[in-house]
Amino acid sequence: MVLIQHLVIIGVGSIGASLGMALRRAGVVGKITGVGRSQANLEYAVSIGAIDAYTTDVAQAASTADVVFLAVPMGSMSHVMQSIQPHLPTSAIVTDGGSAKSSIIQAFKSIFGSTEQLVAGHPIAGTERSGAQAAMIDLYQNRRVILTPDDSTHSKALELITQMWQSAGACVEIMAADHHDKVLAFTSHLPHMLAFGLVDSLSGNQDVDEIFRYVAGGFKDFTRIASSDPTMWRDICLSNREALLGAMDTYLRDMKSIYEAVDTADADALMAIFSNAKTTRDKFMG
Amino acid sequence: MVLIQHLVIIGVGSIGASLGMALRRAGVVGKITGVGRSQANLEYAVSIGAIDAYTTDVAQAASTADVVFLAVPMGSMSHVMQSIQPHLPTSAIVTDGGSAKSSIIQAFKSIFGSTEQLVAGHPIAGTERSGAQAAMIDLYQNRRVILTPDDSTHSKALELITQMWQSAGACVEIMAADHHDKVLAFTSHLPHMLAFGLVDSLSGNQDVDEIFRYVAGGFKDFTRIASSDPTMWRDICLSNREALLGAMDTYLRDMKSIYEAVDTADADALMAIFSNAKTTRDKFMG
Repeated sequence: MVLIQHLVIIGVGSIGASLGMALRRAGVVGKITGVGRSQANLEYAVSIGAIDAYTTDVAQAASTADVVFLAVPMGSMSHVMQSIQPHLPTSAIVTDGGSAKSSIIQAFKSIFGSTEQLVAGHPIAGTERSGAQAAMIDLYQNRRVILTPDDSTHSKALELITQMWQSAGACVEIMAADHHDKVLAFTSHLPHMLAFGLVDSLSGNQDVDEIFRYVAGGFKDFTRIASSDPTMWRDICLSNREALLGAMDTYLRDMKSIYEAVDTADADALMAIFSNAKTTRDKFMG
Repeated sequence: MVLIQHLVIIGVGSIGASLGMALRRAGVVGKITGVGRSQANLEYAVSIGAIDAYTTDVAQAASTADVVFLAVPMGSMSHVMQSIQPHLPTSAIVTDGGSAKSSIIQAFKSIFGSTEQLVAGHPIAGTERSGAQAAMIDLYQNRRVILTPDDSTHSKALELITQMWQSAGACVEIMAADHHDKVLAFTSHLPHMLAFGLVDSLSGNQDVDEIFRYVAGGFKDFTRIASSDPTMWRDICLSNREALLGAMDTYLRDMKSIYEAVDTADADALMAIFSNAKTTRDKFMG
């Protein structure tokens, strides 16, 4: 059953192209148009069946869209919203894949005057690699997608975007935008700060070569996410500042307790922190 | 060729039992005696061929040893040294598998009067699991083992312990103890503090259930090492205090820079830190 006659994917990277592939396989879209800047990338996306056609004219694509999926980096979201706003049919629905939701909703409201046409969303999936080359037809299979509607969101729009993600294999959950931002600050944004911070602090060490020679398994896992795209993460930080600062505050307080316990050789305090961490980790992810 | 007539392994956990299995396979030891407290664990170690016999009488075992391998937790090292000192033949060599080396050397010197009989060492291998049940015959295969002799260490003793580890499949490297402690503080001890601190700070969050429900791949890797044994890590922290505090200082300064850049929405500063981290990570572990 065709859910969406004309889907326009703006930003045909791994997130956008993977959705196109999955929806095409599910047979729930009429036509998929990709919008991007790199012709080579767009042609590759056509070749793997992620999109049927492409254009670099975002206004023209938006004017015939039923659903627009914004899959550009967080830092480009406002700019793209501004460029589609004059052309978008009032019946069309806009959804997105951005990692922070309150800032998306605020930007949309200020540009479109209301959030009636918006169903903000966040697929909890992705890779460290980018571009349509990194697309995978099963990227969303059994992964969670969080949708963050607000009071103005049309229920029909929410229903359609829910069905769209379900057709791509995802498990859809509904959450308030500010709650989403707090949870993601802890589970995703904060760990990335830790990894970037750790590797950055090692890079200035006079023994950096040696340090990387002696790394064991845990460290390798630990720093893998420091290979993520710096531009994307700069934008995420700036788009979720408040929640991220809250998470960093909590974490840095904890690290200061550990520092002080090591400094004063407080064996009981260290034991309490480590035991609590192990118990929590084993309980939830054992 | 038999390198060691009688090897005594004190502490038959994954580190001690794995060495026994590998040396038995290599055919380089005459007899291996395990010393421990849990009879069930020691019997299991015999059943998998990690040791030939066992005793709970550490003095008796030490009195007939050619090489003693101390594989007890860091917090028990001094106590074990004290209990073997009156009984150890002057021709016997002591080596160990502890994660911090300066404190081992200091303890040995104060108990034995000199470090002539000591070849301190650290196999960079292990699992989050403990006990002989976690032993693996190939645990040391192609893994690095760092030996940290000092000026008093006999060259014959260093040679023998080098050959012992090579027989177990390891690649032996020589390093000064204080340098080892600094490098390991960065590559192993600091990442464990980050993981313990992160999970501990999450555990107090009112949304902790939800946070663990929404974790993606990177976070899972990131917190895996928070499942490590709390007692072992308490002891490592206390045994390598100075170097760990230095590493934590550096790291916390870096995290403060990230915090301030997020707080002031300093896009350029974030981009510089993240790019440097990615470049460093990709260069050394790409």
